[in-house]
Amino acid sequence: MQKISVAIIGWGNVGRGCKRALEETSDVVLAGVVRRPVSLNKQEPELENTRVVGDIKELGKVDVALLCIPSREVPERVKEYQAMGLCTVDSFDEHERIVGLKKDLDINAKAKKVVSIFGTGWDPGTDSGVRAIMKIASITGHTTTTFGGAKGGRSMGHTAAVKAIEGVRDAVALTLANGRGKQKRKVYVEIQKGFDPEDVAARIKADPYFTADPTEILFVKSINKYNTLHHEGEVERTGMQVNQKYQVDGNNPELTANIMVSAARACIASRDRGEYGTYTFIERPLIDYLPGATLDEKMEGY
Amino acid sequence: MQKISVAIIGWGNVGRGCKRALEETSDVVLAGVVRRPVSLNKQEPELENTRVVGDIKELGKVDVALLCIPSREVPERVKEYQAMGLCTVDSFDEHERIVGLKKDLDINAKAKKVVSIFGTGWDPGTDSGVRAIMKIASITGHTTTTFGGAKGGRSMGHTAAVKAIEGVRDAVALTLANGRGKQKRKVYVEIQKGFDPEDVAARIKADPYFTADPTEILFVKSINKYNTLHHEGEVERTGMQVNQKYQVDGNNPELTANIMVSAARACIASRDRGEYGTYTFIERPLIDYLPGATLDEKMEGY
Repeated sequence: MQKISVAIIGWGNVGRGCKRALEETSDVVLAGVVRRPVSLNKQEPELENTRVVGDIKELGKVDVALLCIPSREVPERVKEYQAMGLCTVDSFDEHERIVGLKKDLDINAKAKKVVSIFGTGWDPGTDSGVRAIMKIASITGHTTTTFGGAKGGRSMGHTAAVKAIEGVRDAVALTLANGRGKQKRKVYVEIQKGFDPEDVAARIKADPYFTADPTEILFVKSINKYNTLHHEGEVERTGMQVNQKYQVDGNNPELTANIMVSAARACIASRDRGEYGTYTFIERPLIDYLPGATLDEKMEGY
Repeated sequence: MQKISVAIIGWGNVGRGCKRALEETSDVVLAGVVRRPVSLNKQEPELENTRVVGDIKELGKVDVALLCIPSREVPERVKEYQAMGLCTVDSFDEHERIVGLKKDLDINAKAKKVVSIFGTGWDPGTDSGVRAIMKIASITGHTTTTFGGAKGGRSMGHTAAVKAIEGVRDAVALTLANGRGKQKRKVYVEIQKGFDPEDVAARIKADPYFTADPTEILFVKSINKYNTLHHEGEVERTGMQVNQKYQVDGNNPELTANIMVSAARACIASRDRGEYGTYTFIERPLIDYLPGATLDEKMEGY
């Protein structure tokens, strides 16, 4: 079986997680890491034996670009990579924009004969798959998704959104359960010199990531002691005859990275069958995400 | 959108569950119930407004046959219905035979331009989907599936297997958790007059359904007070960075029936795309199992 060659685009927590996930797989291999020009000369022990480039074209044959970049930059970058004839995987996380964006990106993918798995991390992504399975198993019922538990965990999308706001030097956005199916946010912010905390807080609260849920903003000297990569979540469906619950907890970027590396397989399985297009997690068969060269290997544990 | 027309083959607990599940859906409709000749004239209030026939051909247009029959009869019956140009759904439950049987049934389905969803109930079926998702989200790790909890629940496959054994008048086979990833069986049996309990017990223990796990056989005057439709199960995956758990409990045949009705949608979605074949649960996109005429409807809650 030909190995799948991937490039990691972006070297944040998710990019690092992808590199570690790739060390645990043999069918998907790393061609190199693409970083912004400003970061190209940074020395990092984790990248010692890895090609680091500013342009993916320098890496030679790449099948799939893993877009480990802020969610809001994803749609444009998917288009760019598709135009280069590359498959892509991303974890774009704005649920309500996915269907609309996917339609455009699907046209591009079909035109270029590539496959993109779009909006596929933990949630949206595998949690969406779990919600689908729960609805398949219990046609009537009520599903809720609750994040963060009592202590709270790191929301990557919200953290990236706050970090991009003017006047923020560093930040971490925690999500806490606020009753079943509801969340609240706790945002720890290091402010940049010369900025007014009230202005910065107003900008955070006005960001679409935060308008739906109660949000508490705390300005601190250093976010270090509040920072975490841990998160947890729970999907529940109750019905007349059947109850289901799925719980996950762990390192959020590692989880996302594992899903993205698995999705690289789904890109190539679809491309090999000529099923070009841009798909969400639930639009591709689960088996396509699993390792194995033969049906028997892929079906192991069915 | 054209409605999907299904026939229920067999009128046991799962067949009844399919009828109730169909009452909760509008896109899949019941053409009628196919029963054995010996049962055709039985009066049952649940079937008052339903066509009951001995041969599916009497029902006119049927898209999908839902095979609500003992697991061991499934492979032959799938072939028969495929030969008639019908799609099929079943909950065949012998994990280790699935890949082999599927290959043959896949050839038949492609030849007849139909789609079968094979081995798709709770487990194998949605639990297989959950195990796939857990592996996608945590590439390395250890997955276990445990059934029955401390009290035990009804295993449908084991109950049907015991009922088919010579000398058994009626029976229920309970599965109890026996440590993580392990089960034990408790079988309550009403014996037929003139049979030796030791012989009957030996036949049960020799059945492949029971050879792998500790099995206790109890002969009782009436199974009524031990009988239940309830079952529960848990899939867990632990990894270095991520832990996941899925729990389900409820009425076992209703759960299976809901999954089978959802799978009827997946048959027709695949057939409409010309993707003929015999597939397991994880080989079809989850979205195909969900209701909705448009992408937006199907993606609701993604």
